[in-house]
Amino acid sequence: MKLATYRNGEADGCLMVVSRDLSRAIEAAGLAPNLLHALQRWDEVAAELQHLSDALNAGLKPLARPFDPARCMAPLPRTFQWCDGSAFLNHGHLMERAFNTAPIPDFDSIPVMYQGASDDFLGPCDAVPLPDEAFGIDFEGEFGVITGPVAMGATPEAAQQAIRLVVQLNDWSLRTFGPREMKTGFGFLQAKPSTSFAPVAVTPDELGQHWRGGRVHLDMEVTWNAERFGHPNGGEMHFSFGQLLAHAARTRKLSAGTIVGTGTVSNAGGERGSACIAERRAIETIAQGAPVTAYMRFGDRVRMAARLPSGETPFGVIDQQVVAC
Amino acid sequence: MKLATYRNGEADGCLMVVSRDLSRAIEAAGLAPNLLHALQRWDEVAAELQHLSDALNAGLKPLARPFDPARCMAPLPRTFQWCDGSAFLNHGHLMERAFNTAPIPDFDSIPVMYQGASDDFLGPCDAVPLPDEAFGIDFEGEFGVITGPVAMGATPEAAQQAIRLVVQLNDWSLRTFGPREMKTGFGFLQAKPSTSFAPVAVTPDELGQHWRGGRVHLDMEVTWNAERFGHPNGGEMHFSFGQLLAHAARTRKLSAGTIVGTGTVSNAGGERGSACIAERRAIETIAQGAPVTAYMRFGDRVRMAARLPSGETPFGVIDQQVVAC
Repeated sequence: MKLATYRNGEADGCLMVVSRDLSRAIEAAGLAPNLLHALQRWDEVAAELQHLSDALNAGLKPLARPFDPARCMAPLPRTFQWCDGSAFLNHGHLMERAFNTAPIPDFDSIPVMYQGASDDFLGPCDAVPLPDEAFGIDFEGEFGVITGPVAMGATPEAAQQAIRLVVQLNDWSLRTFGPREMKTGFGFLQAKPSTSFAPVAVTPDELGQHWRGGRVHLDMEVTWNAERFGHPNGGEMHFSFGQLLAHAARTRKLSAGTIVGTGTVSNAGGERGSACIAERRAIETIAQGAPVTAYMRFGDRVRMAARLPSGETPFGVIDQQVVAC
Repeated sequence: MKLATYRNGEADGCLMVVSRDLSRAIEAAGLAPNLLHALQRWDEVAAELQHLSDALNAGLKPLARPFDPARCMAPLPRTFQWCDGSAFLNHGHLMERAFNTAPIPDFDSIPVMYQGASDDFLGPCDAVPLPDEAFGIDFEGEFGVITGPVAMGATPEAAQQAIRLVVQLNDWSLRTFGPREMKTGFGFLQAKPSTSFAPVAVTPDELGQHWRGGRVHLDMEVTWNAERFGHPNGGEMHFSFGQLLAHAARTRKLSAGTIVGTGTVSNAGGERGSACIAERRAIETIAQGAPVTAYMRFGDRVRMAARLPSGETPFGVIDQQVVAC
């Protein structure tokens, strides 16, 4: 099934079930007021949500209305935990080569992951207010999963079983702060403003053969100011989502509603472009000694959509403009 | 006023108003079901909570019952954001000297702060389940604040005005993971299991003259297995809470219910001992070339209480045992 959250004046929004082709949507508030609530009572409500989804897809819900992404908040407008990995090793290796930094220890055997702010996610069409163009405004196209409860010490296999929904996201980054915050050892904070999400969260089965090995085998199409920027494929992820979740749960349990992201989707070889400006700048630096592409300006737009071979966008589209706050 | 949260089977618990001397408590569920809810509607409920608190302190609430810390969850058992600073420079300087690591850049002019997990906080008397004694189990005695909304780019003065409550906490740490996670640049994740809180959250006015300059001027008494470990004073904090909050809010707004901590309370000179084992080990390493004190074992207890000169403990007491999970 496919779920979304409409703005309704409440911080957690209103839960919607969306048809497979994203053409229509119907309120699920009778089953759960919002997605966070549904995730906390998943065993009670999942079957009923699935039933509603089946009926909607069968054209049996005359009260359904055209689905409107502009009314969408993030599928989870806020939650209690958000962790983001860096599971595409190609991205990390490019950054190290370009900036001549020390290799991250055990980068290919232990996931790196930062804890992010989860109190204020942005919807797919929301403006992105930021304080200063000089902060190195960048996008990062990623996939993520939303989990049920994961026990402390869970294996990757057990953790993967707890995946409820798959999402697509833009992990906005302010590159000016990154290197200093990495040097402190305390990780990213000012470098990571509010993260944005595509409108539709989907159960893994909705991705069919494109969900396998705990990875999303889809191209992430990124367009910056109407110019095609990159379309790397999510299947090249080094660690599976199960491995990322087990890493996060090694010394603590994860509550229902936890979101874990992949880090910037990135493919070796370079033919597919990048899903963030920093990586393109790294490639330019390696090739030419210096970056050519500048970071984003106020007024710029970025569009991101994972695309099926059929042309459909299973998560809908992120289409946002950066503005001065 | 003083607030606590009783366990009631719900994830957010039941909001209680506690008398100034911590002798009695009364349910505030008629005003707000839980503290997270109250913080999100603070302007509507604060006056009524204060009224209930005043009546309780005046002995006018015969339905009040003896306050029982053993029934307490953390004041906020979960919330949408938790950030922890390292605002006592003495602690950072000792760690650098002992381990001969590079100084954190701008340590005395820009706060360092990591984003922590906020989905599963522990109550003051809860057992602390951890997977392995070999992980370097350590406590960190700290103060913290719980905020209302803070705008992106808020000044330290404006941010300080958003402080709703002051708390006392134990930021459990697994030292085996810390150095590796710092080297990745992505910050602490496995090194920071669930954080514990003293039972009572207090409005700043409850601390009287001991709340000034955005700092808690109280000794943090730490006892490990019934042996006095340290009693550093919170007044030596280099950055004020207003400065810490402004740092966290520089590139994003903070939602109501955000918790920001001080980092381990630490005083120069050493006469007052430490609020974490790692700092004592650093002092031993500097003095004798190697640490002497071992980290915690399963079955160990740690007790923490900030104490007024009168002997009272305004936040109550954290008293926990570490157990195998």
